[in-house]
Amino acid sequence: MSTKRPFASASVLESIAAQYPTPFYIYDEAGIRANAQRLVDAFAWNPGFKEYFAVKATPNPALIDILREYGAGVDCSSETELLLVEAMGMSGDDIMFSSNDTPAGEFEHALRLGATINLDDITHIPALASACERAGVDLPDTVSLRFNPGGDFAFANGIFGSPEGAKFGLTEPQMLEAARQLRDLGVEHIGVHALLASNTLSNDYYPTLARTLFAMAVRIEREVGVDVSLVNLSGGVGISYKPEDEDNDITLIGEGVRQAYEEILVPAGMGDVAIATELGRFMMGPYGALVTRVIHTKDTYHHYLGVDACAANLMRPMLYGAYHHITVMGKEDRPCDHLYDVVGMLCENSDRLADDRALPEVQVGDLLFIHDTGAHGHSMGYNYNGRLRSAELLLQEDGSVRLIRRAETPADYFATLDVLPVYDRLPKRKSERP
Amino acid sequence: MSTKRPFASASVLESIAAQYPTPFYIYDEAGIRANAQRLVDAFAWNPGFKEYFAVKATPNPALIDILREYGAGVDCSSETELLLVEAMGMSGDDIMFSSNDTPAGEFEHALRLGATINLDDITHIPALASACERAGVDLPDTVSLRFNPGGDFAFANGIFGSPEGAKFGLTEPQMLEAARQLRDLGVEHIGVHALLASNTLSNDYYPTLARTLFAMAVRIEREVGVDVSLVNLSGGVGISYKPEDEDNDITLIGEGVRQAYEEILVPAGMGDVAIATELGRFMMGPYGALVTRVIHTKDTYHHYLGVDACAANLMRPMLYGAYHHITVMGKEDRPCDHLYDVVGMLCENSDRLADDRALPEVQVGDLLFIHDTGAHGHSMGYNYNGRLRSAELLLQEDGSVRLIRRAETPADYFATLDVLPVYDRLPKRKSERP
Repeated sequence: MSTKRPFASASVLESIAAQYPTPFYIYDEAGIRANAQRLVDAFAWNPGFKEYFAVKATPNPALIDILREYGAGVDCSSETELLLVEAMGMSGDDIMFSSNDTPAGEFEHALRLGATINLDDITHIPALASACERAGVDLPDTVSLRFNPGGDFAFANGIFGSPEGAKFGLTEPQMLEAARQLRDLGVEHIGVHALLASNTLSNDYYPTLARTLFAMAVRIEREVGVDVSLVNLSGGVGISYKPEDEDNDITLIGEGVRQAYEEILVPAGMGDVAIATELGRFMMGPYGALVTRVIHTKDTYHHYLGVDACAANLMRPMLYGAYHHITVMGKEDRPCDHLYDVVGMLCENSDRLADDRALPEVQVGDLLFIHDTGAHGHSMGYNYNGRLRSAELLLQEDGSVRLIRRAETPADYFATLDVLPVYDRLPKRKSERP
Repeated sequence: MSTKRPFASASVLESIAAQYPTPFYIYDEAGIRANAQRLVDAFAWNPGFKEYFAVKATPNPALIDILREYGAGVDCSSETELLLVEAMGMSGDDIMFSSNDTPAGEFEHALRLGATINLDDITHIPALASACERAGVDLPDTVSLRFNPGGDFAFANGIFGSPEGAKFGLTEPQMLEAARQLRDLGVEHIGVHALLASNTLSNDYYPTLARTLFAMAVRIEREVGVDVSLVNLSGGVGISYKPEDEDNDITLIGEGVRQAYEEILVPAGMGDVAIATELGRFMMGPYGALVTRVIHTKDTYHHYLGVDACAANLMRPMLYGAYHHITVMGKEDRPCDHLYDVVGMLCENSDRLADDRALPEVQVGDLLFIHDTGAHGHSMGYNYNGRLRSAELLLQEDGSVRLIRRAETPADYFATLDVLPVYDRLPKRKSERP
């Protein structure tokens, strides 16, 4: 029997579905808050600690606003993400801009917002200097550098691969050279950043990464003679998608990083370095679910459950072969004695939410709760086959439900055809009607 | 040296890029027309032949309108695709509705348009009958059934897998039972459909599939006593993505299907069966290209070319490991003596358009022509990392360029946030400004 329990009951979800048609994403405010507080507590030993929520994971302002109450800023990867957080009133130290293969104009936007910029390549130093000129601003006091140590890495995994094969970051010689160049340009403080694995399930990933980055930070300060003020551990702390996996313990993780800090940075006279994180999945993944209804059962060479969601709503299983646990609402405690392929309606055989999944016997009309889709779920949706992305709802602490993103409509899907005459005969958004 | 040549010159693409910023998709009207004519000619022996263009491949009305001049209809897989072709003035015999795990409301829409409906499962017969009642229409005269013979199949391939493992279609006993049920409900004509492989490079795929479907058609007519009027070979005829692969020869393919028709259907007294195809990739793939500019070169553990497109524009390499040939514009005839990873800017290490690709030496500013992206290219784009989908342009026969889909803007990306107060501070579409 699974230990994963939905954060809402069958009757609650049915009453929500009566107002907001399935499929929809729903997020659990209480869960988000409790987890955010655990993170803050785990790093309370570091006065400069700040989480920069990875906007790409779940770019919803209502959810980000919850995290802000716990001191979180944002990690943006693109101009649209900068526009979003700008509209939310964020600027300066609240924004980390961690991009790669960055279009020049995006540096300008990040500079205007006073974001901390995290450079992915040594050639981005002249690009940043040019962007400063165009934006009419000085180079920032602090510039961060993304490190890629190459070789293999103990926690490297399938999705991310080995550091050596990753497109991200600067080599060790480049880190030192970049620090020199930035120092010579008048930058006063250097940040050091790395992401060396994705979705790790180990309380040792962050501490191990921290040792690598702390050592790099010490080298930069000693060999280049420029202050390192920031070590950014980025993301990579994962969540347990499978019921049999053990959750990470953020308290232990924070303590592991503290030990590394005490052993490496403090003796080097660098006890003022601020720790940053750019967690996305860890902050939101378990606290979001895709809720979909079974609209079709099919028995051919397999037993299929056809649902009203598809890869347009959740692409991780198709893209990564990712496992997402499924609870059949109202049948939480029945034996999982049937094997089903749970499929969507795309004309792609890989449009599946689960293969050979043991579930209780399912009928058309049952609601399925697709667990742990709060990060890299809705945000990775697409419109293949003309399918539309779903709404996002927030289950608030008081039990009420708030619509925090409406579902796409055909009018959204057709919006970019407004250069063609046929557009006049296509469905329009109400607000666009004359 | 590659035998793949871009359908536009470097100077033409540079002049287009001066008006429409990269990245953009561009389609070659002359190529689309010549290929469509070849298809028509290849099946001219069958008076009822009709190609139903798979809208999902390239859902652009301007491109579909070109194919309509060659007698093509459309294969729709969803309600939005039905809405699109309805706005284009299509109905009745011009529309095939080939869906799976179909929401009930979509059958109603297809019925109202008089589309030929292709059922994916035997349980869709009562679903269709109910939809007829709700729509206030009779069951159609002709209903098509999607066949899945199970087992393995000579042309089965990686993307699609074996028929036995595919979610699509009815088993052989179900085909016969479904034909009986439809006959008893008063349906006069049955269609038979199957897609058993994706993107085949063989002139034998269609003829082999045709033999399977023709034999099924004969069995249905003989054993059930209902007329089979349509055999739908669906898609699956591929294109050569790699320069060393040989193109399919549609003339030979048509001739192979004709031979099977003469051997199986004609002797069975079924020489009036119409052949349908639902080609997408074959009709559009080679005649579209993604044009992107190199904005960044990076040398770490590999040599990287960073371009201004990413998986948001072209997902096939990330999703399928697909190969797309790349030409460096203006350097078409230089030796390909450099190895590059061509990457986009997503914070995903798998956001790559090519790995270890031999190209001429590339400089920042060079234009890359990503070949064979005319199908399942733009239509599979997403918005991860807040990245925006690009414009689509038509290179017309007279050499002029027409914008047939505008690029997304941040306002499009933010559209579904209009339920939140922050929306008022986000960029708006011009037409929505007060």
